[in-house]
Amino acid sequence: MSRRIRITVAYDGTDFHGWQIQPGFATIQGCLEEIVGGIEGQPVHVAGSGRTDTGVHAKAQIAAFTLSNPIPVENLQRAINRLLPPSIRILDVRETHSAFHPRFDSIAKTYRYTLFRAVVCSPFDWRYMHHYPYPLNEEAMAAAAAFLVGEHDFTALAAADEGITKVKSKVRTIFNSELRREADLLIYTVRGSGFLKHMVRNIVGTLIEAGRGNIAPADILIRKGNTAPAKGLTLMSVEYPPHDNLSE
Amino acid sequence: MSRRIRITVAYDGTDFHGWQIQPGFATIQGCLEEIVGGIEGQPVHVAGSGRTDTGVHAKAQIAAFTLSNPIPVENLQRAINRLLPPSIRILDVRETHSAFHPRFDSIAKTYRYTLFRAVVCSPFDWRYMHHYPYPLNEEAMAAAAAFLVGEHDFTALAAADEGITKVKSKVRTIFNSELRREADLLIYTVRGSGFLKHMVRNIVGTLIEAGRGNIAPADILIRKGNTAPAKGLTLMSVEYPPHDNLSE
Repeated sequence: MSRRIRITVAYDGTDFHGWQIQPGFATIQGCLEEIVGGIEGQPVHVAGSGRTDTGVHAKAQIAAFTLSNPIPVENLQRAINRLLPPSIRILDVRETHSAFHPRFDSIAKTYRYTLFRAVVCSPFDWRYMHHYPYPLNEEAMAAAAAFLVGEHDFTALAAADEGITKVKSKVRTIFNSELRREADLLIYTVRGSGFLKHMVRNIVGTLIEAGRGNIAPADILIRKGNTAPAKGLTLMSVEYPPHDNLSE
Repeated sequence: MSRRIRITVAYDGTDFHGWQIQPGFATIQGCLEEIVGGIEGQPVHVAGSGRTDTGVHAKAQIAAFTLSNPIPVENLQRAINRLLPPSIRILDVRETHSAFHPRFDSIAKTYRYTLFRAVVCSPFDWRYMHHYPYPLNEEAMAAAAAFLVGEHDFTALAAADEGITKVKSKVRTIFNSELRREADLLIYTVRGSGFLKHMVRNIVGTLIEAGRGNIAPADILIRKGNTAPAKGLTLMSVEYPPHDNLSE
């Protein structure tokens, strides 16, 4: 009897070449496939809700794989965590329906990007934020962020090489797009139906240009700043329809 | 004109062989001496308030050195931070009186040791806590911690090789010694006149034995558990008499 297993994965992306498996590089998917394949006794494909770039973190990435091993889910979680490096942790394991696909079934994702605005960035925080202590008009940035809410064509904010896949739609819906200050942190949170390659980092790079006065807030969808550094970005959550959230 | 400079240093000790300089190893003192010596144009001795072991962290270690370079303190801080790895940061730089010594003048130090008590430790936290998800009688541990307050001979809780320096007193005064729960964390905070080598880690190892029922709380000063792992320990602050806290 094969079982479809859904896992929630947190990782510090600092030391990984992103989610996607790449021979010769440490990746999150690569670590998981090696360990789960070892438990199953044959190769297992671990599908994620989407790729994260080199250096990007996740508080709750969702992945799934099919297993014939009858190991109880609690034991499976413990077994995988024992073999993973401490910078990757399985937070939850459950059985789901056989057709569940973490990417195609997702209905929303939330990302957070953190800028550190003071002069000296703590040695305990530098891995998780982009240190930007220079002047920024944060009100202009917040105004620009608000322009992203709604259904838009995000071609201008996609990675340059996204253009190769011309057939695919670049239209995405953004449900929330907010910038807020918390002490020395400037935190951008965006929740949307889906995101193109580098899209959130390009949004943040463009928000920074708006903050520097180089781009008008209303132009955020048509002009692009630099791609903001990966280390400030964290995948916070992935959402699914209610019937996909049932436990076994 | 030579100036005595006092600095406050924070560091993530994970990747360092402790505070004290050791040829061929990355140490906090070694990094600082190299950078400050480069600014001064000749070797500079950077004295700390005390050594921290390999893997131990600091939120506010205090150090001092003597400089003839007239660089303003703000520029000095910026210059040093630019050259340090991001896991070491200078939080404060000020001029002090010429006789200031961060070790001999200190009147109290505060350390914190963090145990993580739940099953899955976050990839963002594992560097800074000892993961101990096994059963512990935390009330017995708190009772044992309280027995340490006051002036005591800490010979039993010193590192084995502290015994070599037989002439030195092992008597120390503990002002506060408290264990508290914060969600999944069990946090031990100790403030004292000074600490012997491995003393805090040995206290925590002994508290764990008290929590396991192997040592009676009242016996904490005469019996010793294992030395708790370095990564759970952080030097929180070092205190000086009021006249040593003056800025230039």
